[in-house]
Amino acid sequence: MGPICDRKKKGREPPSLTVVSSGTPSSLSQTLQRVFLDHYPCLAFRRCSASPSKITWGSNEMIISALLTCVGINLGICLLNVTLYSVLRKQPFNVAVYAPRLLAQGEFRHRSNRQRRQYILERLVPTAGWVRTAWMPSDGDLLSTVGFDAMVFMRIFVFSLKVFSVAGFIGVFILLPINYLGNQLNNDFSDLPNKALESFCISNVNNGSKWNLVISRRKESRPDLFSRLVRGIPVSPESSCSETVGRFFKENHPLTYLSHEVVRRTGKLQGLISDANNMYSKIAHLKFKSLPEQRFVRDGFLGKFGRNVDLLDQYEKKLEELEDNLTKEKSSLIGTEAKAAFVSFKTRLGAAVALHIQQGINPTEWVTERAPEPRDIHWDFFSSSVIKRWICQIVVVVASAALIILFLIPVVLVQGLSHLDQLENWFPFLKDVLSVKIIGEVIIGYLPSLILYFFQSLVPPIMMVFSSIEGYISLSQTELKACNKVLWFTIWNLFFANVLSGSALDQVNTLLEPKKIPRVLAKAVPAQATFFISYVLTSGWSSLSSELVRLRPLLYNCIRRLFAGESSDEVEVPYIPYHSEIPIILFFGLLGVTYFFLAPLILPFLLIYYCLGYIIFRNQILNVYINKYESVGRFWPTVHYSTVFSLVLMHIIAIGVFGLKKVRLAATLTIPLPILTLLFNEFCRKRFLSMFDNPPLECLMKKDKEEQNDLDMDEFHGKLATAYRHPSLSARHSKSSDELHSSLLPRAASV
Amino acid sequence: MGPICDRKKKGREPPSLTVVSSGTPSSLSQTLQRVFLDHYPCLAFRRCSASPSKITWGSNEMIISALLTCVGINLGICLLNVTLYSVLRKQPFNVAVYAPRLLAQGEFRHRSNRQRRQYILERLVPTAGWVRTAWMPSDGDLLSTVGFDAMVFMRIFVFSLKVFSVAGFIGVFILLPINYLGNQLNNDFSDLPNKALESFCISNVNNGSKWNLVISRRKESRPDLFSRLVRGIPVSPESSCSETVGRFFKENHPLTYLSHEVVRRTGKLQGLISDANNMYSKIAHLKFKSLPEQRFVRDGFLGKFGRNVDLLDQYEKKLEELEDNLTKEKSSLIGTEAKAAFVSFKTRLGAAVALHIQQGINPTEWVTERAPEPRDIHWDFFSSSVIKRWICQIVVVVASAALIILFLIPVVLVQGLSHLDQLENWFPFLKDVLSVKIIGEVIIGYLPSLILYFFQSLVPPIMMVFSSIEGYISLSQTELKACNKVLWFTIWNLFFANVLSGSALDQVNTLLEPKKIPRVLAKAVPAQATFFISYVLTSGWSSLSSELVRLRPLLYNCIRRLFAGESSDEVEVPYIPYHSEIPIILFFGLLGVTYFFLAPLILPFLLIYYCLGYIIFRNQILNVYINKYESVGRFWPTVHYSTVFSLVLMHIIAIGVFGLKKVRLAATLTIPLPILTLLFNEFCRKRFLSMFDNPPLECLMKKDKEEQNDLDMDEFHGKLATAYRHPSLSARHSKSSDELHSSLLPRAASV
Repeated sequence: MGPICDRKKKGREPPSLTVVSSGTPSSLSQTLQRVFLDHYPCLAFRRCSASPSKITWGSNEMIISALLTCVGINLGICLLNVTLYSVLRKQPFNVAVYAPRLLAQGEFRHRSNRQRRQYILERLVPTAGWVRTAWMPSDGDLLSTVGFDAMVFMRIFVFSLKVFSVAGFIGVFILLPINYLGNQLNNDFSDLPNKALESFCISNVNNGSKWNLVISRRKESRPDLFSRLVRGIPVSPESSCSETVGRFFKENHPLTYLSHEVVRRTGKLQGLISDANNMYSKIAHLKFKSLPEQRFVRDGFLGKFGRNVDLLDQYEKKLEELEDNLTKEKSSLIGTEAKAAFVSFKTRLGAAVALHIQQGINPTEWVTERAPEPRDIHWDFFSSSVIKRWICQIVVVVASAALIILFLIPVVLVQGLSHLDQLENWFPFLKDVLSVKIIGEVIIGYLPSLILYFFQSLVPPIMMVFSSIEGYISLSQTELKACNKVLWFTIWNLFFANVLSGSALDQVNTLLEPKKIPRVLAKAVPAQATFFISYVLTSGWSSLSSELVRLRPLLYNCIRRLFAGESSDEVEVPYIPYHSEIPIILFFGLLGVTYFFLAPLILPFLLIYYCLGYIIFRNQILNVYINKYESVGRFWPTVHYSTVFSLVLMHIIAIGVFGLKKVRLAATLTIPLPILTLLFNEFCRKRFLSMFDNPPLECLMKKDKEEQNDLDMDEFHGKLATAYRHPSLSARHSKSSDELHSSLLPRAASV
Repeated sequence: MGPICDRKKKGREPPSLTVVSSGTPSSLSQTLQRVFLDHYPCLAFRRCSASPSKITWGSNEMIISALLTCVGINLGICLLNVTLYSVLRKQPFNVAVYAPRLLAQGEFRHRSNRQRRQYILERLVPTAGWVRTAWMPSDGDLLSTVGFDAMVFMRIFVFSLKVFSVAGFIGVFILLPINYLGNQLNNDFSDLPNKALESFCISNVNNGSKWNLVISRRKESRPDLFSRLVRGIPVSPESSCSETVGRFFKENHPLTYLSHEVVRRTGKLQGLISDANNMYSKIAHLKFKSLPEQRFVRDGFLGKFGRNVDLLDQYEKKLEELEDNLTKEKSSLIGTEAKAAFVSFKTRLGAAVALHIQQGINPTEWVTERAPEPRDIHWDFFSSSVIKRWICQIVVVVASAALIILFLIPVVLVQGLSHLDQLENWFPFLKDVLSVKIIGEVIIGYLPSLILYFFQSLVPPIMMVFSSIEGYISLSQTELKACNKVLWFTIWNLFFANVLSGSALDQVNTLLEPKKIPRVLAKAVPAQATFFISYVLTSGWSSLSSELVRLRPLLYNCIRRLFAGESSDEVEVPYIPYHSEIPIILFFGLLGVTYFFLAPLILPFLLIYYCLGYIIFRNQILNVYINKYESVGRFWPTVHYSTVFSLVLMHIIAIGVFGLKKVRLAATLTIPLPILTLLFNEFCRKRFLSMFDNPPLECLMKKDKEEQNDLDMDEFHGKLATAYRHPSLSARHSKSSDELHSSLLPRAASV
């Protein structure tokens, strides 16, 4: 705990940015900075801008040459990444890495054939054609191709670009000269941009076309608009869950009730099905791909001893056993109902009534909630009891708070291992290797970064697990909640942990004294300006451009091609990782807003980041990712709240700065700003939030009436009745397995 | 501002309770205490218990003789009040004071005649028969006589009695001896009662019979269950508001929409109607009651000069003018629609759908809310715009917070006037009077109390006005919100202002440092134990018993009988003043909970207070008050929240006390308690709160089905269509005025 606790002295110095080349890191904040900046090589900048006495608040004291070096290095990395991408994407064997989405849609079959015939030379010349391809599609095209959620995701970049282009103009051409000339910060100037930002926020929220989109999306006939999930069904011993649900809804929704589907616990069944599928593909492989001699192995140790066995016979026997088990399991599943059900209604209004009005007398029974799209259902940790779920939520809140606040403690402890002497103590056989100077330096320089990077990359999956435990039924909701948690994690561990030094407990303590917060922040935040500018360059620019190259899938693809040959045609198309990407983008927004008047120099770099991000993610969304679900823009409120939080934080820092600079009047005049911002937030909540949650009755009625005379509705109602059947229980699966079986049999006979 | 600010020194002494017989009050806290205790004479107690060094925390150091004196005096006052009441209520001329409710219901006509024939002697002997009469009715009888809200009001006493009888037992027989023996407060003992209190809370909330009552009350056919108030109607220039509403609801609620009634601004009309009514009664008085010579007066100055005029002719001419105006105003009112309407539905479910689902696409238009009972409508400050209303609510929150926090500043400033020398300066002509020693002492002793009392009695009406401005449509809601505000006012100005010395701003500052709160409270709260015990005796016992005597109406009745004769038979029946009484009762609960382990001696006195209150208010509700509306127990959540707040406050003080006494382990073990209490509160909110707000669909459907075949429903629907017509616009008024007119005419002809 040494490194965490040893910076308790009150008179804090501006933290030094020099590289501590060996020995224990002297403070958590320093470790952090060292580690964050070590992700990418910008040591030059750090070495040049190292003199602690120089780094005080305001951007005019930054050393220009150091900044330029850092910009140069990161620009170089960006260019390298982009060039690499533009060459690699043209190689036909990389299609699965750079266009899995198109490949999965079958669009690439003929194109890849065509590309194979291209001249090798053309394939090796880097071109920028992909930028044009990514730029071309209109919003409408994009919407129909990639879905609404991806549009909203791109909207974050547009929104940030709008805000920061105005803020950047003011910052660079008004604030920066003033700062440079060493004048006192003028209240008028800090007020002006607040207003500009706020009005931008309004203009964006009021943007009519977008909300019309939200509403028009809701008008589609989707099963989730006609269905509700019911939890807490009070099952009596006499009747089954399905009967109880049917009776209750027939009684209370006589005109609109259509059908229901009881949720069943299918863990074991799913295991059996995946086993059976594995067996099928093994048999298929043996029959059609492998040489006859591969069919026979010895049944003893490692297949080298014992008597010769026909693998095909063995597998087919196992398969029969599995299918018997499957049939048994399916019939026994009737007993494992989960006291929850999907109930479908004939009209949208019927479903809305079931959602908005408390159903049973006891509010913990017959609890209704939105049903997710069938493809969006996410069954892990499903709990049918409302009270149990509430307890889980409390536990998760506590666990996430603990993870967010205490995350750095184990990280720093583990990083202690990366000191040469300790490594030598633990692994004596490495002594010789470590004594080579270069290897030692590399380990000292990069091992801490790697460890932090490893731990950090664990956070989004952990938050996903936490959100699953909270008991959300859909992947979209789980991901949204995980996104919020990762956002808090990022803000705390990147912003506050960097800004406020001392142990985690000290940091929390500081924030527990509301009166002192502005002053503490005003002292600490400006001192970190240099660090955050270089953070934008390294984690912003370079990370973004490496998103383009997709290093991990590229390596995986290479390895697979080398060892497995080009045999398997299956392409796994990744989903857009909203819950890990959105927090980073929003965090850069927070940096922009808070440093807007403290260090306006950050803004041009941010603008470039957002431009890059816009093009790169547009390209990736068009080529790489698919959307697993359609949440109709549920992520947007998070963007809104994050912006409001950033504004309030900026106001609080402004109050503190004016207080420190003894401009009492300005400090007092700034106090109403956070209050006004919060009121504005409240107004937006009242005015716009309901669009994400509750389709209004007017729309529901209109659409219901239109559909009343629609002949397709009968067909849709028929589909609706089975839409929420568990895939492993639905007829479809057994049919497809039968198909496979029957397709196998004739060939097997022919062998 | 002197007296408010001059107690800023940090090492606070326990405040002295000695009477500052002259000169500036040395601290706000002292002034307050002096003034609160001066309401009733308990000077003896204060004079005896005066030594500041003696009054430290814990009850064992209290001077028993002083306490006994104070108890004696207040017991005397109680007995006096009760005796007075039991004699006065038997006097026939006081029926209007002590049984206006029964008088208004016509039950008293024969009884009062019977009473007049009673022997004078019997009427002068105090008896306790009223206690038996108040005790007798069962809960069912009471419910049918006085309504559900009054029942819930009585339930507060029962709840408090249950809680404090257990707490009192533990406090007096376990904690008091331990405190007396000077042992350290033991964590086990303070934990035990917390749990007891909480479990009591649960047991009370779980009480099945009560909630069945809530639900069964909802099953009645009341217009408010079938109607909704709609605000923010988007009126286009082409069509009237009424047409717009009709079209919208016919379109969107085709099966359930019944009728609507547009809200109109009727301020001028109501003025005309009340003028006309006054004129009617004047004419009626002239015709049937007064002597013929009273009809003729001179038309000059003060009726003494000028020519003789027949008043009757004059009045009748004026009446005709008024009626012409009325007719004009009624026809022109069609144009003054308020963009709001009451919409009635055929079924309860239809009304519930209109309430719970957002109606229009813009969430600030077509906003629906619960309609109050027709008799409960309260039109002051009605605003049809949702955004305007929201702004009003923010303004009111700020204004109430300012009133609550800064209330004492003007009071203390005005009280500065009550010093003899200042009074003499301001009103020199009083010099002779003030120089008489007794008069001077009385003025110094009681003028500050009177001023504070006067200001305090202004608070509930001010809070009522504030809540009206917030734009609630019903008296019940307005009163509920006023009740919450008065409760906060009481807790802040009686508890915190007393406990934390210094200026208002200092007090707020103290509470802005969350870490210091337990320590500050632990130091300050125990020091005030003596004061609050005597507060229970004076403001509790004596005030309660004076509620029985109803001094103000009694005096008013005497004066009216002396000057106006027994002529007017009209009795004004008062409503139960929930918003001023409930906060006081809840405040005593807070005192009981917070002082439970600091000074358990307070508990027996509180128990007596609740017993007294139960009987006295039962009596008053049966005889004096009527209920203007039926809010089906909406006050109960306030009681719940207040109890939870008291518990958390108690936990925080406990943490502070253990910290001060250096019982670290106990302090740490107590920290989870407030968190558990808040979780418990959250559980109750989830489980029980919906019963007050949303009748579940199951009940709505059941009742709707029952009523489907009910022939009375047609009649009810007919009534429903006009239930929300403004009384001044409904046919009823013109009919009744016609009746009056026609009843006047034949008699006028006979004169």
